[in-house]
Amino acid sequence: MENSNPHPYYPLDARINNYAPNDASVLSLIATASVGVTALLGATFLLSTWVRPTLSIASRIAILWFVLSGTLHCFFEGYFMINHDHMVSAQDFFGQLWKEYAMSDSRYLTSDTLVLCMETITVLLWGPLCFGVAYSILHNHSLRHPLQIIVCMAHLYGDTLYFATSLYDDHVHGRPYCRPEPFYFWVYYFFMNFIWIVVPAYYLYQSMKTISQAMTKLDADSLSRKGQ
Amino acid sequence: MENSNPHPYYPLDARINNYAPNDASVLSLIATASVGVTALLGATFLLSTWVRPTLSIASRIAILWFVLSGTLHCFFEGYFMINHDHMVSAQDFFGQLWKEYAMSDSRYLTSDTLVLCMETITVLLWGPLCFGVAYSILHNHSLRHPLQIIVCMAHLYGDTLYFATSLYDDHVHGRPYCRPEPFYFWVYYFFMNFIWIVVPAYYLYQSMKTISQAMTKLDADSLSRKGQ
Repeated sequence: MENSNPHPYYPLDARINNYAPNDASVLSLIATASVGVTALLGATFLLSTWVRPTLSIASRIAILWFVLSGTLHCFFEGYFMINHDHMVSAQDFFGQLWKEYAMSDSRYLTSDTLVLCMETITVLLWGPLCFGVAYSILHNHSLRHPLQIIVCMAHLYGDTLYFATSLYDDHVHGRPYCRPEPFYFWVYYFFMNFIWIVVPAYYLYQSMKTISQAMTKLDADSLSRKGQ
Repeated sequence: MENSNPHPYYPLDARINNYAPNDASVLSLIATASVGVTALLGATFLLSTWVRPTLSIASRIAILWFVLSGTLHCFFEGYFMINHDHMVSAQDFFGQLWKEYAMSDSRYLTSDTLVLCMETITVLLWGPLCFGVAYSILHNHSLRHPLQIIVCMAHLYGDTLYFATSLYDDHVHGRPYCRPEPFYFWVYYFFMNFIWIVVPAYYLYQSMKTISQAMTKLDADSLSRKGQ
């Protein structure tokens, strides 16, 4: 049966109805998103400097990362969680951004079970926890590194499953969710998600190293006390 | 079209071909599995006592847990990873166990994308890491708690996604993967998986608490040294 309401998404037979093309151009969407992200990072940097002027640059960058992740999880992905079943015709800013991103993964417009469940957990748990990690860095809280490992693991495992399931459906079932143009695959699908592999891997390593050094020091102190 | 080779799994139209009923009874499968698990735990307990006689009971129980998890991941789930596309007609021990378990989740017999990707990651990463945690407990390694948090997070996140996706498909898409008898739902699907929520939650809490106390103590020591 011919699709009565054609759409630009893959696979071509994906059940996506009532598609309305974006009003805004891709360039203006990306420009607006960039301004928003820059404003968020700038405000967070200033706020963290004001609250804790002595904080190291590395800690301030870490706060920027977790605030950025938490904001995307709670608001951008929160928008998806609430509007997933009708955002294909939306013309508000987040709706248009999602419709553009879905060129690289149509599962966001078909309420795919895995994507929807994973995004819901991300919005409800990992988003708030990202803000928790940022707060714990700001106040040098003793739970900073355990929480940082938890959030990094959530990013790494979630992202790996995200990549694995779509690549499997494409290569084994011959069911691609991404349009064939390399731009969509490499920039939206690969690069935008790979960031949440690389950076969490670094912060996971950092936390493991910090905890390991702390444990080694405590054991050494305990031994030297016994020897006194 | 009538299914040419009927099967007992849900949903009734699940694409499961060449089904062969188990040769062994459920009772004998469970009895054999119980003997195997008991032998594994007994051998692990004796080995850990022999290597480190001074190890606390709590640490030995933790080793049992991570060795049991690692063994299930690497061998039982490893069997699924290798044989998922033809184990529906298998009559070996693991094949029969999987066919019995699949009464509560037919995704294990349809090479479901999420289940297959998640199990593959579990076999290749979390299984070996479970043995790594057991080893780190045995030798009081400084990486014990970071690794323990990573494995517990993998269990908690994976299990939550496992529950969420199947419940969503059942309640929203009207597509149940579990047979209607309460035994399959509550004993196989719910209880057998819920164990990997409750125990990892406890060990996650334990590691977070231990690390937090260590960090607090180090900070206090550092402050008191500065005050001297």
